[in-house]
Amino acid sequence: MNEDEMVVTPWEVRGKIDYDRLIKEFGTERITPDLKQRMYKITKEKHVMLERDYFFSHRDLNWILDEYDKKNKFVLYTGRGPSGHTHIGHLPTWIFTKWMQDRFDTRLYFQMTNDEKFVFESHLNLEDVRKFTYENTLDLLALGFEPENTFIIQDIEHIDLMYEIAVQVAKKVTFSSAKAVFGFDNSMNIGGIWFPAMQAVPAFIHSWVYGKKTPCVIPCAIDQDPYWRVTRDVAERIGYYKPASIQNQFIPGLKEGGKMSASDPMSTIFTTDTIKLAKKKVMNAFTGGRATVEEQRRLGANPDICSVFKYYEFMFMPDDKDLADIGRKCRGGEILCGECKQILAPMMTEFLEKHQATREEVKDRVDEFSAARLRDELKR
Amino acid sequence: MNEDEMVVTPWEVRGKIDYDRLIKEFGTERITPDLKQRMYKITKEKHVMLERDYFFSHRDLNWILDEYDKKNKFVLYTGRGPSGHTHIGHLPTWIFTKWMQDRFDTRLYFQMTNDEKFVFESHLNLEDVRKFTYENTLDLLALGFEPENTFIIQDIEHIDLMYEIAVQVAKKVTFSSAKAVFGFDNSMNIGGIWFPAMQAVPAFIHSWVYGKKTPCVIPCAIDQDPYWRVTRDVAERIGYYKPASIQNQFIPGLKEGGKMSASDPMSTIFTTDTIKLAKKKVMNAFTGGRATVEEQRRLGANPDICSVFKYYEFMFMPDDKDLADIGRKCRGGEILCGECKQILAPMMTEFLEKHQATREEVKDRVDEFSAARLRDELKR
Repeated sequence: MNEDEMVVTPWEVRGKIDYDRLIKEFGTERITPDLKQRMYKITKEKHVMLERDYFFSHRDLNWILDEYDKKNKFVLYTGRGPSGHTHIGHLPTWIFTKWMQDRFDTRLYFQMTNDEKFVFESHLNLEDVRKFTYENTLDLLALGFEPENTFIIQDIEHIDLMYEIAVQVAKKVTFSSAKAVFGFDNSMNIGGIWFPAMQAVPAFIHSWVYGKKTPCVIPCAIDQDPYWRVTRDVAERIGYYKPASIQNQFIPGLKEGGKMSASDPMSTIFTTDTIKLAKKKVMNAFTGGRATVEEQRRLGANPDICSVFKYYEFMFMPDDKDLADIGRKCRGGEILCGECKQILAPMMTEFLEKHQATREEVKDRVDEFSAARLRDELKR
Repeated sequence: MNEDEMVVTPWEVRGKIDYDRLIKEFGTERITPDLKQRMYKITKEKHVMLERDYFFSHRDLNWILDEYDKKNKFVLYTGRGPSGHTHIGHLPTWIFTKWMQDRFDTRLYFQMTNDEKFVFESHLNLEDVRKFTYENTLDLLALGFEPENTFIIQDIEHIDLMYEIAVQVAKKVTFSSAKAVFGFDNSMNIGGIWFPAMQAVPAFIHSWVYGKKTPCVIPCAIDQDPYWRVTRDVAERIGYYKPASIQNQFIPGLKEGGKMSASDPMSTIFTTDTIKLAKKKVMNAFTGGRATVEEQRRLGANPDICSVFKYYEFMFMPDDKDLADIGRKCRGGEILCGECKQILAPMMTEFLEKHQATREEVKDRVDEFSAARLRDELKR
């Protein structure tokens, strides 16, 4: 197998990512300038992650806006598989989700798939996935979500709110189809085979709880698209709308190739890393630089493949002028990679210091966000 | 395929049943006279279903009695898939279970697998399986169970008490193994593939709720054995005892071959049938009789293949003398099948009338038996 070959599944992302090819293969649509304008008419402001095509692909967003115009407001749904500490690469999707939540004034269902991580990861026990559910929740809340419109679903703890929907989904998905979509083979355990039904549930839970068919938009990285294909395939057959989605690129790891991944700790900055370690990881990051100073001065470097530049692009340099400036200096050989990292490092550590402080502050607020509140809604 | 060929799976029983072969193929043990005596030392009375080998096979019952002697008492677990009304053929297992519950003074967990029937039966919706769960519960309670020691688990409604155990089971069962045991193919839906994990749960739920490893005995028809093979295979790996089982024969249908089955209404007496219809079904039953009266008088009939005789044997003629008497008359040609049915019919209708009256009386007591009470135990 060519090591550059693109592999994008919910469990593995590697090789050189060709986003145009992903759109074609997955059958999604590119987010056009017109669609952005349509969103901005409601949001009243642009978002850098849309402007710079971090969110680049979607399903049915035009329909979502049609319904919104008709006062049929959507809910948002995203989530996290709590298999370890949150890393920086997880945050942009959540940050953008919060922007949508604020700007469209809508509810968010956030799924913590502790059952998934338990059944898929042989090294994790129930205590582990519970611990990481809690830890990851702190990172989510540190981004400033408010409980009124934010419902965190923990699969194992809130299964009573999910199972009836999940069996309806599961009844419509054959092993053949799960195999084709996810590449399951016969060695997959029956919990893993079941799980796609659980990942579908939050797309329907609002409609189910309130007894009113409600559109749903899922902001997520595009590697999760197989789940939404299954969910969409089933939706109308069990009486719900197909969920729409808005899909982002991967944040590259700090080493060459693939997305940032928890499986290689040095490629990843965890939100729980010490400032010292985070700085070290930035300083060791993979860039688009040249082999020698002389060469870089003469030929310039390549920001398009540089992990440092991606952080400027999607998180730390919202100002287009700043970004263009550093891009120009990079390409022109005016700045060396070491110097450039010296610019990112304090941005990263400042972000982390603030995030870690907020993370502490939200510790006593976790319960306020629980989807357990839906039980009270059901009793009404 | 030879139509006499024996097929015994949890979903299908047909052909001529060879119980010795089942014991060999499933790897269970025959219930020996010694084992019966060991049970009777505790129960202080014999049971006709043991004496006549209706319960004929087991796994680990000697170990269960060893533990019982050491004051490590077991719990009982059996259940019902609520896909339709209860028929007479379901009752003997439950009647025997009640005897064990009374005589060993132990708790029973009774599982209503409404999720199973919903995902396996394309024609059933959630409302249907809930209706039959309720209807079947009435039949169970009509047999005289008392709430103190009887906990009815409804999978969908009590999933919060089950899911954590179910994912632990599911993680240890591959699709290969489920395929080998149950004969699943790729067209099986992912809810059906998941379900064996759910059927395992009640074997462990007592240990889980009370935090104390507790032996479990499952009285059931032998066609359910594949589920217990999977359950036993996983048990010790997730910290529980392997469940023991005590297994019964099938009650034959009123037509030739196979077990009594809801799929052919005339082969089956439902507990909700009118007295008139039940009588008609008895009078039309398949027997071991001869083609003509003359032949039967001369050669006698064969009670061993007669569905009427099976009802005497396992339900309506507990007195050995009565049973021997009618067997002798049958074999000797002294009694014709029509006459014999005239003896069974009033026994059956009397039983049904009483059962139906009790069924009405228990209607307002259903909630008393709910496994929801385990939630309070967990809070302690």
